[in-house]
Amino acid sequence: MIEINQKEIKTAGIIGANGYTGSELVRLLAFHPNVSLCFLYSRSNSGTKISNLYPDLEAVCDMVLTDRAEEVDILFLCLPHKESQNWLTQNVVKNETLIIDLGNDFRLDGNFENRNFIYGLPEINKKQLLGSKSIANPGCFATAIQLALLPLAQKGLLNEVYTTGITGSTGAGQSLQATTHFTWRNDNISAYKTLTHQHVDEILQQLVSFNINEISLNFVPWRGDFARGIFTSSTVKTDLELSDIHQLFKNFYADEPFVKVSEKAIDLKQVVNTNRCVIHIEKSGNVVVIHSAIDNLLKGASGQAVQNMNIAMGWEENLGLNLKPIAF
Amino acid sequence: MIEINQKEIKTAGIIGANGYTGSELVRLLAFHPNVSLCFLYSRSNSGTKISNLYPDLEAVCDMVLTDRAEEVDILFLCLPHKESQNWLTQNVVKNETLIIDLGNDFRLDGNFENRNFIYGLPEINKKQLLGSKSIANPGCFATAIQLALLPLAQKGLLNEVYTTGITGSTGAGQSLQATTHFTWRNDNISAYKTLTHQHVDEILQQLVSFNINEISLNFVPWRGDFARGIFTSSTVKTDLELSDIHQLFKNFYADEPFVKVSEKAIDLKQVVNTNRCVIHIEKSGNVVVIHSAIDNLLKGASGQAVQNMNIAMGWEENLGLNLKPIAF
Amino acid sequence: MIEINQKEIKTAGIIGANGYTGSELVRLLAFHPNVSLCFLYSRSNSGTKISNLYPDLEAVCDMVLTDRAEEVDILFLCLPHKESQNWLTQNVVKNETLIIDLGNDFRLDGNFENRNFIYGLPEINKKQLLGSKSIANPGCFATAIQLALLPLAQKGLLNEVYTTGITGSTGAGQSLQATTHFTWRNDNISAYKTLTHQHVDEILQQLVSFNINEISLNFVPWRGDFARGIFTSSTVKTDLELSDIHQLFKNFYADEPFVKVSEKAIDLKQVVNTNRCVIHIEKSGNVVVIHSAIDNLLKGASGQAVQNMNIAMGWEENLGLNLKPIAF
Amino acid sequence: MIEINQKEIKTAGIIGANGYTGSELVRLLAFHPNVSLCFLYSRSNSGTKISNLYPDLEAVCDMVLTDRAEEVDILFLCLPHKESQNWLTQNVVKNETLIIDLGNDFRLDGNFENRNFIYGLPEINKKQLLGSKSIANPGCFATAIQLALLPLAQKGLLNEVYTTGITGSTGAGQSLQATTHFTWRNDNISAYKTLTHQHVDEILQQLVSFNINEISLNFVPWRGDFARGIFTSSTVKTDLELSDIHQLFKNFYADEPFVKVSEKAIDLKQVVNTNRCVIHIEKSGNVVVIHSAIDNLLKGASGQAVQNMNIAMGWEENLGLNLKPIAF
Repeated sequence: MIEINQKEIKTAGIIGANGYTGSELVRLLAFHPNVSLCFLYSRSNSGTKISNLYPDLEAVCDMVLTDRAEEVDILFLCLPHKESQNWLTQNVVKNETLIIDLGNDFRLDGNFENRNFIYGLPEINKKQLLGSKSIANPGCFATAIQLALLPLAQKGLLNEVYTTGITGSTGAGQSLQATTHFTWRNDNISAYKTLTHQHVDEILQQLVSFNINEISLNFVPWRGDFARGIFTSSTVKTDLELSDIHQLFKNFYADEPFVKVSEKAIDLKQVVNTNRCVIHIEKSGNVVVIHSAIDNLLKGASGQAVQNMNIAMGWEENLGLNLKPIAF
Repeated sequence: MIEINQKEIKTAGIIGANGYTGSELVRLLAFHPNVSLCFLYSRSNSGTKISNLYPDLEAVCDMVLTDRAEEVDILFLCLPHKESQNWLTQNVVKNETLIIDLGNDFRLDGNFENRNFIYGLPEINKKQLLGSKSIANPGCFATAIQLALLPLAQKGLLNEVYTTGITGSTGAGQSLQATTHFTWRNDNISAYKTLTHQHVDEILQQLVSFNINEISLNFVPWRGDFARGIFTSSTVKTDLELSDIHQLFKNFYADEPFVKVSEKAIDLKQVVNTNRCVIHIEKSGNVVVIHSAIDNLLKGASGQAVQNMNIAMGWEENLGLNLKPIAF
Repeated sequence: MIEINQKEIKTAGIIGANGYTGSELVRLLAFHPNVSLCFLYSRSNSGTKISNLYPDLEAVCDMVLTDRAEEVDILFLCLPHKESQNWLTQNVVKNETLIIDLGNDFRLDGNFENRNFIYGLPEINKKQLLGSKSIANPGCFATAIQLALLPLAQKGLLNEVYTTGITGSTGAGQSLQATTHFTWRNDNISAYKTLTHQHVDEILQQLVSFNINEISLNFVPWRGDFARGIFTSSTVKTDLELSDIHQLFKNFYADEPFVKVSEKAIDLKQVVNTNRCVIHIEKSGNVVVIHSAIDNLLKGASGQAVQNMNIAMGWEENLGLNLKPIAF
Repeated sequence: MIEINQKEIKTAGIIGANGYTGSELVRLLAFHPNVSLCFLYSRSNSGTKISNLYPDLEAVCDMVLTDRAEEVDILFLCLPHKESQNWLTQNVVKNETLIIDLGNDFRLDGNFENRNFIYGLPEINKKQLLGSKSIANPGCFATAIQLALLPLAQKGLLNEVYTTGITGSTGAGQSLQATTHFTWRNDNISAYKTLTHQHVDEILQQLVSFNINEISLNFVPWRGDFARGIFTSSTVKTDLELSDIHQLFKNFYADEPFVKVSEKAIDLKQVVNTNRCVIHIEKSGNVVVIHSAIDNLLKGASGQAVQNMNIAMGWEENLGLNLKPIAF
């Protein structure tokens, strides 16, 4: 049952509220019991109601986008990659403000000016995130793949990893592109950034901090013909028994409210519109395949940002994140 | 801000929890602050965890389906049409229990044994629903079409109505049928029950109670290639100016939290995973077209059932219904 | 069995080959036994291989787009609306060349310079099309709706018509728009150009030439979440028995190779990737609903253009149009 | 240009014409210039018009399904796996009849009674297929994956292969299953038969006949949310330069009309409704990824069966296979 301490209400603002991750944060924070949303910043759409851009928000939030940021307790940066640094350089944010950056500016190197951004994957960094004022929110593929590999990495069992992942069209943002044209994308599958996706470095940097061996990650990302979600299958080799691997994963995620290791086959849609990650493991010979699924806009972006905020503020981790799954 | 009075927690049970509308109620009630879900009844799946049938529920509800109903404050019937009467005949429910029937057994005639079921469209019957112990939840198409026509009916302006509506595959239930096979339905459109859909009588019965003239409703339902949602366009004739019609609708729904009359074009997805209905009106000559959109499982079924429960119990109408839209 | 008279090979060119209807003509003409495709004209993509724009054409056609038109026997204009007139004004086409315009420039008024464009709906104008040198190819919705209404119009039985139609995303062309973004359109339905679609005039002009009464057509077009196809349902009133209406339609289309009046329910996908139109009629009281379905790029555009070419040239009507349905 | 020798018309029959691959053969053979379709055999649907099961066939084929097979020149078996052997045991087929089995009964071991089934992948067995009377048509995934790996295997360069493939719902056949329910499958991705798909043995048997080293194939198949098509990405290691690999593939498929090695990124839809396979190769470090795409019902089943028939009969390989791509 939710307990609300009136003193706990904190103010928040979103820089780049006009994009997918920014607007998804609005959907989450509008119903968050401890947060009061103070401003939605967008240079390009300043003066426009956010619900004009996203009509589903009509009943959720009637705020007008602005090009003036205010002082707030919590600041979310939802900017194109490399724009977060620019924005922070050009604007003053007081030290006490919790900054959560959803871009990739501080994921590989968290040091920026007098701040040190913590990599915001709660399942590995929860202690450091508690009380932190600077959080680098992980990438969407990076979240799904790391959660599939971390328990093995922690035991030093990773070596070569072969991963295929598929992402919904929201992963490509709201700009109009040939590959997001409905006529092209409907019923279509294609690969992109084969072996060169920017999340590979992000994943390896985290995994190697655990694993004693070198790890190679051969990652083939695919574009899927759906809007939301990421499904990945990672193939590795190990002599461990399946039951031991399973136990390893169960133990690793025992206290994690948003990660579920399932003994049954999983499918993407069971996590869509939730902040959850589901994992399923199969084995044949010495070959192990770990499947994982997340909603790319939630556990892969805005939902995880709220989870990180909750942890940093000392609130219950799932506050505002008890989302009704879309299910169908 | 949510205020919770511990004394207000009421017990609830769901008869027929294994279907789409039943499981959707689980998704809603599991997070409802005033309701404690006591049992999920299913004869066919008794002994099975509900999350085995719907894996998205793993993190939401770990209850096991049972074939024994208990005494509760609120009872939801999510049974195939005509099964609600059977169930109530074969089982004893105390008079103080609020029964909300999601089938169509009591929509046209609410008298059953010593109960009198109120037609649960809050936008017309809110006063009667307050404190009621027996509610007949409307049909999905019936909800979308009535909300599009009620303001005109109330002024006696309806005469001939031509409506086309399209529904997602969840409207056809979970049974495997040729018309719900993915291979057939993907990218496909088809008509069914042309001019003979069972919701026509339900709609007319309500509308004629307002309208002084006779009304004819020519309704062509279509099957759509998506899972959730209903979109309808109703064409009628009137000499009223568009601005007057608009004002009429705005006034009619002024106090309704879940109905929005939009001056901009609407689309189905803006209401998916919400309990909202959006309406948009256009006019050319003396011909008026009223578009309306709902999520068939929420405002068209389980969401409206929760709304009706909130009203009947004297709670805030939107309690447990501040749902994050899927949006994309 | 196909008989080929070597002397019958005619040369053809396409103006505006880079769009959807132009490239679809390439797909058809590349395999047409009597046609030799000589040039593909595109000002914006001159110098590019057509298969660079449409990789499915790699095995079909290796021609390079050009900005120079040649003299040919048959010229197809696949230009944006109003551009056909411009192009014909700026370029010389010899009188013997058969021009088939897929735009709407000559549908309502076929007189242009020394040419008189025949409205190319073969099911009404086949005799005039035979030997014609100027053909205005009908619009996609106009084709589907007229074929649903013509038999009644011919008997003077039309009065008020209420039509809803849904179209795939290819109907909106290849330009990137908010309403063709995959993220928005997937699983979505919306209305556009309510009561004001440009095809209404085109339809009425043809129908009134048959019908003795005035006709009103109240047309609500919807955007569908699929790429190809049009499905329409038209509601009218008549005292004719369903069996008589059915016979009327059967007789009207008895000799038409591409129109099928079905006694069973129809669905959109049964005509996708074919040049066919399927029609199904239902009746309740004095209300009749006529459903029709076509592939908007084939019977609704490029397929019908080839059909018109075949008729004009005195070839078998289905030459090059025995297309394998996609079916699934 | 098609040349038809009237003496060349051969008779054909289909055993199991009521399924997806059987009906797809009807779509192809109905328009094949050298084939006269004599009977469509189906025990379960005997007496029914094939167009009653597949209404798209109304304009293509008006044959009635029968439970009596006749003597024909060419016999296609489109039966569930292991049923081909049963059927051939229970029925007499004369030695001169060309039998093409689309099941997996004779793929691993072609010896059956007095016949020796040739594995019908034309790109490796074309010489043996010429004049053959017994052909085992390859599996769909087996076709896509082999075509991606053969040029490397032929050079003995394969070692460990990691493949992910995604298939449309038609791959699961027409029976109603939980995983082919539209509500479940729409917008969904899931893995199945991880590392244990029955095509792995089929693929390895062919590849090892070329490759001097042992090969391991770690194959993860996924279910996709589309009806037609297979897309696969295979990751292997080699020190060859990308340009050399590319040349190797180009040379290997130089004379193959249905395999295209593309220097540009490929996507699934460019081959849907065609008999083609497109391949694209990428490399980073010593890691190579080979993408391949086919239509699972055409190059993956019925189209390849027609291709094999053409080769066996000494006809042009692409006779009846110049199919208009769906493209959009």
